[in-house]
Amino acid sequence: MKKIPHRLYLTEEQLPKQWYSLRTDMKNKPAPLLNPATHKPLKEEELYPIFCKTAAKEEMDDTTAYFDIPEEILEIYKVYRPSPLSRAYDLERVLETPAKIYYKFEGNNTSGSHKLNSAVAQAYYAKKEGITRLTTETGAGQWGTALAIACSYFGINLDVYMVKVSYNQKPDRKSIIETFGANIIPSPSNTTNAGRAILAADPNTHGSLGCAISEAVEVAVTTDNCKYVLGSVLNQVVLHQSVIGLETYEAMNILGEKPDIIIGCAGGGSNLGGLIAPFMRDKLQGKSDVRIVAVEPASCPSLTRGKFAYDFADTGKITPLAKMYTLGCEFKPSANHAGGLRYHGMSPILSQLYHDGYMEAISVEQTKVFEAAAIFARAETILPAPESAHAIYGAIEEAKKCKETGEAKTIVFGLTGTGYFDLRAYNDFRSGSMTDHIPTDEELEEGFKKLPKF
Amino acid sequence: MKKIPHRLYLTEEQLPKQWYSLRTDMKNKPAPLLNPATHKPLKEEELYPIFCKTAAKEEMDDTTAYFDIPEEILEIYKVYRPSPLSRAYDLERVLETPAKIYYKFEGNNTSGSHKLNSAVAQAYYAKKEGITRLTTETGAGQWGTALAIACSYFGINLDVYMVKVSYNQKPDRKSIIETFGANIIPSPSNTTNAGRAILAADPNTHGSLGCAISEAVEVAVTTDNCKYVLGSVLNQVVLHQSVIGLETYEAMNILGEKPDIIIGCAGGGSNLGGLIAPFMRDKLQGKSDVRIVAVEPASCPSLTRGKFAYDFADTGKITPLAKMYTLGCEFKPSANHAGGLRYHGMSPILSQLYHDGYMEAISVEQTKVFEAAAIFARAETILPAPESAHAIYGAIEEAKKCKETGEAKTIVFGLTGTGYFDLRAYNDFRSGSMTDHIPTDEELEEGFKKLPKF
Repeated sequence: MKKIPHRLYLTEEQLPKQWYSLRTDMKNKPAPLLNPATHKPLKEEELYPIFCKTAAKEEMDDTTAYFDIPEEILEIYKVYRPSPLSRAYDLERVLETPAKIYYKFEGNNTSGSHKLNSAVAQAYYAKKEGITRLTTETGAGQWGTALAIACSYFGINLDVYMVKVSYNQKPDRKSIIETFGANIIPSPSNTTNAGRAILAADPNTHGSLGCAISEAVEVAVTTDNCKYVLGSVLNQVVLHQSVIGLETYEAMNILGEKPDIIIGCAGGGSNLGGLIAPFMRDKLQGKSDVRIVAVEPASCPSLTRGKFAYDFADTGKITPLAKMYTLGCEFKPSANHAGGLRYHGMSPILSQLYHDGYMEAISVEQTKVFEAAAIFARAETILPAPESAHAIYGAIEEAKKCKETGEAKTIVFGLTGTGYFDLRAYNDFRSGSMTDHIPTDEELEEGFKKLPKF
Repeated sequence: MKKIPHRLYLTEEQLPKQWYSLRTDMKNKPAPLLNPATHKPLKEEELYPIFCKTAAKEEMDDTTAYFDIPEEILEIYKVYRPSPLSRAYDLERVLETPAKIYYKFEGNNTSGSHKLNSAVAQAYYAKKEGITRLTTETGAGQWGTALAIACSYFGINLDVYMVKVSYNQKPDRKSIIETFGANIIPSPSNTTNAGRAILAADPNTHGSLGCAISEAVEVAVTTDNCKYVLGSVLNQVVLHQSVIGLETYEAMNILGEKPDIIIGCAGGGSNLGGLIAPFMRDKLQGKSDVRIVAVEPASCPSLTRGKFAYDFADTGKITPLAKMYTLGCEFKPSANHAGGLRYHGMSPILSQLYHDGYMEAISVEQTKVFEAAAIFARAETILPAPESAHAIYGAIEEAKKCKETGEAKTIVFGLTGTGYFDLRAYNDFRSGSMTDHIPTDEELEEGFKKLPKF
């Protein structure tokens, strides 16, 4: 029997040359984006004031299954990719499970996560189209760092609006983003109408991804030669992140392995959508019955407790409407340390797949997430990001079930990033001072009441 | 012509199964360690109170060229190795140089550096010999983190004495070391006689590696079932780090490339000694005329301005005497941000090779080091550790010379680690507030006067 290596790296020749668009194999496509004023489906041109044209085209294209990755993007992918597919032998040993656990580790780059995969694509589109400035938001700071690295590489100016609670928790994120030449502003800020309105309503707000998006979009549409980019949720981002799943799929084929369960953390859905892409393709085509499990924070449970409805992507209500699982764009998640998962909505693609029964979702409190993170770190020598540790939690739970039943299931999870900028969170966990707020049904109802009416 | 990939990862089967001991091919062996009381060459047994027996044996063995790497250590190497050998195409483009630049990147593990290669070996020896507690010192915190990870993996208790200036600069190092279950104490401390004596002499001292070593050794020799481990300088550490060079050598052979120049940063010498090991073997055997260049901080210039003499490894003068390039064990380097290079001495192996003309050395101010780091980060997307950036500086200088002469030399440098815990240093650099202190000849003479007399 072939011995499975601890880590498998594809060769440069084996790297994917195309992204795969999951939408093309979905019978029920994600519902179209709507113009928030007319409630009519949006045309591609209507996205041009916000997005680069190439990005707008990718966003709207429901029919192209495979997109050639431009040569310039392949070149920078080769600088930091492939990411390894690791067999978690030591975690299996510690858990005494018969399960075979694999993880796709996207943290071995200076952004510390998978976010660089879409950042380099979007920065390249800006450069190609003569855009000189980009704006964006960031939660935990991984996306902001990724885009700063990409913009530095391609010579584009960048303004990053960072959710205030994370900005205060992670001063080093400011430093690293500035080291790569970008500006960083805590959000909500006084630099935009959206920010000023949110501050007027609640001067002590922690901020949220939805609020930071409002500010970044406002700057983009009111500044010459400036566009907005988003690090998750959008179809184009899920498309770029398919590189994670395509590498994983190729690696599993080389190893002669087939996953029974694929597990990912879910905030906006970019990592999970990317990881599952080719596996879900097989499932949609009736060739696979792999289980797909999304793991989200109990403090921000969009899939497990949200409504499947049209909503704004931002708190300031200036973006197009997307049909997705949402807690309402005014929902304010508590100050959970997994900043990258503190988003009220979910990728329309994943939302539709979940609605149609192609995937499952669970939610978990952050103390349990950090317990799982510590077990993983000590076994596998990698300190995970709190976001990624949601997936670890899910994988450990499934591995424990295998221990009970004696089944040797093959589990693959996405280890999206490293926790090197999350050490205050780890301190809170060790000291026992970590708390969590699970929203009550009444609090969620408040959010749902504010969903746009049709 | 074969296209060189951006990154080459060896397969698990291609990983080295043995470490190579550079000493065996040296005509002039490093001088023996001396008992500080008798000034007689030390016997292996005399090291047992300090070191694990296996480590003591490795330290003294001048004749075994290849040591089998124990299976348990190979298993954990496979968890985080191989490290990639990268071709710096983007740095070459930015520098407009005809040189071919390669770097061996050891930063893709949670210790953030090459230090894990020796930490797992030394922690494993402790476990095998029934030792329940280890002590050590750490400068920048990379070694302390590495050993905490290794001790956590093998279930050993650990006390880390961290140089005070770095402890204060890097609170996250404390957190990550504690996350892996170790204790961390700023040095000099009140927990040891050595620490109390140093504090009494200079209550405002920044601390130094030499001082932290004194404290850690004192605890080890006065505590039951407790041994001391060191992350650099020693022959055994250079032996373990040969895995870096052996992987690099194999990768260069696969690529059909031969280095003209190999460059590494030099503090205690473990990374440089490991990187060059098989290349220096060829040079010692007359099969290669590769240039080897050590780059050290101008604030702590042991090779370029030190004396080749017997000295203590620690400030408290309790260790055996080693013949090495040294600034004197009481030398207090300024608060340079490359904490891992702030050591008064240098590996006896490298010292002898340098003395015999087999390698060169340069020193550089830290502002120039950070300039090089920023150029590299923006081109290659990796934020380097300040220590590693010394090697980057050296590589860029050689690449610039190639631009002038039109020579397409092949340059290999060691990128030992990442700068994720060095962002305050990057802030100082960007704000223009970074300074440097180059010791005067008079200051160095003060240090030399205190060298042990024979």
